Amino acid sequence: MADPSTCPPLTRASVIAAHALITPYIHRTPVLTNTTLSQLASAPLPSSSPPPNSTPSHPTIRFHFKCENLQRIGAFKARGAFHALERLKLSPTFNPSAGVATHSSGNHAQALALAARTNGIPAHIVMPHISSPAKLAATAGYGARIIPSGSTSAEREEVTAKVIAETGATLVPPYDHPDIMLGQGTAGLELQEQVAPVKLDAIITPCGGGGLLSGTALSCEGTGIRVFGAEPSFEGADDARRAYYSETGERIPSVKTLTIADGLRTPVGAVPWSIIYERRLVAGMYAVTEDQIKAALRLVYERMKVVVEPSAVVGLAVALFNEDFRAMVEKEGGEKGWDIGVIFTGGNVSLEALGKLFSE
Amino acid sequence: MADPSTCPPLTRASVIAAHALITPYIHRTPVLTNTTLSQLASAPLPSSSPPPNSTPSHPTIRFHFKCENLQRIGAFKARGAFHALERLKLSPTFNPSAGVATHSSGNHAQALALAARTNGIPAHIVMPHISSPAKLAATAGYGARIIPSGSTSAEREEVTAKVIAETGATLVPPYDHPDIMLGQGTAGLELQEQVAPVKLDAIITPCGGGGLLSGTALSCEGTGIRVFGAEPSFEGADDARRAYYSETGERIPSVKTLTIADGLRTPVGAVPWSIIYERRLVAGMYAVTEDQIKAALRLVYERMKVVVEPSAVVGLAVALFNEDFRAMVEKEGGEKGWDIGVIFTGGNVSLEALGKLFSE
Repeated sequence: MADPSTCPPLTRASVIAAHALITPYIHRTPVLTNTTLSQLASAPLPSSSPPPNSTPSHPTIRFHFKCENLQRIGAFKARGAFHALERLKLSPTFNPSAGVATHSSGNHAQALALAARTNGIPAHIVMPHISSPAKLAATAGYGARIIPSGSTSAEREEVTAKVIAETGATLVPPYDHPDIMLGQGTAGLELQEQVAPVKLDAIITPCGGGGLLSGTALSCEGTGIRVFGAEPSFEGADDARRAYYSETGERIPSVKTLTIADGLRTPVGAVPWSIIYERRLVAGMYAVTEDQIKAALRLVYERMKVVVEPSAVVGLAVALFNEDFRAMVEKEGGEKGWDIGVIFTGGNVSLEALGKLFSE
Repeated sequence: MADPSTCPPLTRASVIAAHALITPYIHRTPVLTNTTLSQLASAPLPSSSPPPNSTPSHPTIRFHFKCENLQRIGAFKARGAFHALERLKLSPTFNPSAGVATHSSGNHAQALALAARTNGIPAHIVMPHISSPAKLAATAGYGARIIPSGSTSAEREEVTAKVIAETGATLVPPYDHPDIMLGQGTAGLELQEQVAPVKLDAIITPCGGGGLLSGTALSCEGTGIRVFGAEPSFEGADDARRAYYSETGERIPSVKTLTIADGLRTPVGAVPWSIIYERRLVAGMYAVTEDQIKAALRLVYERMKVVVEPSAVVGLAVALFNEDFRAMVEKEGGEKGWDIGVIFTGGNVSLEALGKLFSE
């Protein structure tokens, strides 16, 4: 992929430029509101002692849900992949006929496959052989060449290096690259435009590798909108939160977790971390339990009637259930409260997986 | 409820009048399209021998999905209930303080509860004691008084009669009444408006008691839009289809089925039947298997990312999988094909129920 030193500067203006590049290829996904969820987030938490009439008629948290589950390939990852391809096409050293390569068992695989096919470029996708048949089929369905590998990071990276050596393909990483971050940030940019005339007070997004969170933070730079990151706490998946509040602020380079939010099992990347922490463009990090993620998932299915994957609702779970976050909004938002943008990152969950989650 | 003899005539103009009455209370639900589903319906069925390139680039079936799963209370039933209440309020013999009553374990219960609360009128809802706690809670959540009963029709009707005798409440039946049918027909009316400038060739809706199907047929009277009904074939749930194609055309007054399309376990009602069959306003009836319903459900979740209940996709399942329907569209639509409106009737399914359906 393009040498990061030749990439556009990591600024809001570069997110705007990225949006212009990818607009022909992506959906401008809808922004939904939901009175029930806004009222739930505005009512006191069960743990505090509620006043007699605890549900305010004018909710102090007003949600605006950016539905990237309705994005092409079912997730925001299409934005970064199309932006990476557009930027590569501008590079004199890129060899289109050799194509692009990555390793991913998730949404990035499908996103890169679609972006490559759209541009008539080969895509070589290294996927662990334990990937679900549905995911393998979906990625192959976009015309990509699938190369099986072992499931550890080392095995996947080794196979990817071999594929690149053999084909001359250019690596497109899933999150740890400026072009990917700028592409993902376009979701935050659209969200800001779509809620007008409302002005958002905050945006909260899930944080896995940090591409979306850092991109969103860039899209909000200088706007006064505060950006927050949300992670699962299960088995230490909240690596970015722990690093953010540690004494040294040092990024935690590896995590090993089987959180149900399977898109968020990766540690935050170095380039995203430079935005999230070092440049202080993210105002806070919060974590939620597996049960809180499931409760948020249930509310979205039953009340909003949209299909989201577990990772997609981690930001909503924070806003609904995290006491520190709620206390912060109460303090900062006062009587007027806050308009909060929440990015639903994706909707790629199999009915079997959903069934297992909720059949107990 | 109002004596049917005092009801508006069963015409398209009366559906338009009903729409004007209920517009302040209901959502104008969105109409979605989906390229993948339209292409699937346009490709030859697996059972026929496909030509070399079987997926046409311009699909000959173009779906327009009316999303009543996003309606208030999560189903189209809100339309009929609000219309019934508006009509009752115009009646000199209606006693608002005595309220309304019905027996239902499904969406009609919640719809009537909401319409009554909105009008400041008591609602007495007879529900079988085996109803799921979620359904009981949802109905009670709208402020209705829940009266438990046994689960057979006879037991439910007996309790309802007793409640009405005690309270003086007015019965609002779930489907077998002109005011309900005219209310439900407003979904078809909106759909026709929303697809403009496209002109629909057909609308297909599920058929349980027949309120929605007959109302939709009335909304299309004189427009040239053909209306079709869809039922599950499991355990004879296709009572309306069987009667429609029988020699006598006599309505089948009872069915006993446990189809997964639980909103369609009822026999078609007498007043709906007068529209569907006797006035020939429905152009054909089709049935699908449980597996076909599940396959359609899976496609809607995975491709459209919206939450629907099994009953909601029975019309789509016909358009995707029923060979007779497909052959008819091919013959009638020719090269240009058809624009088909499909009403997604509701989205009230628990994640547990969904889990059970797909965890095998």
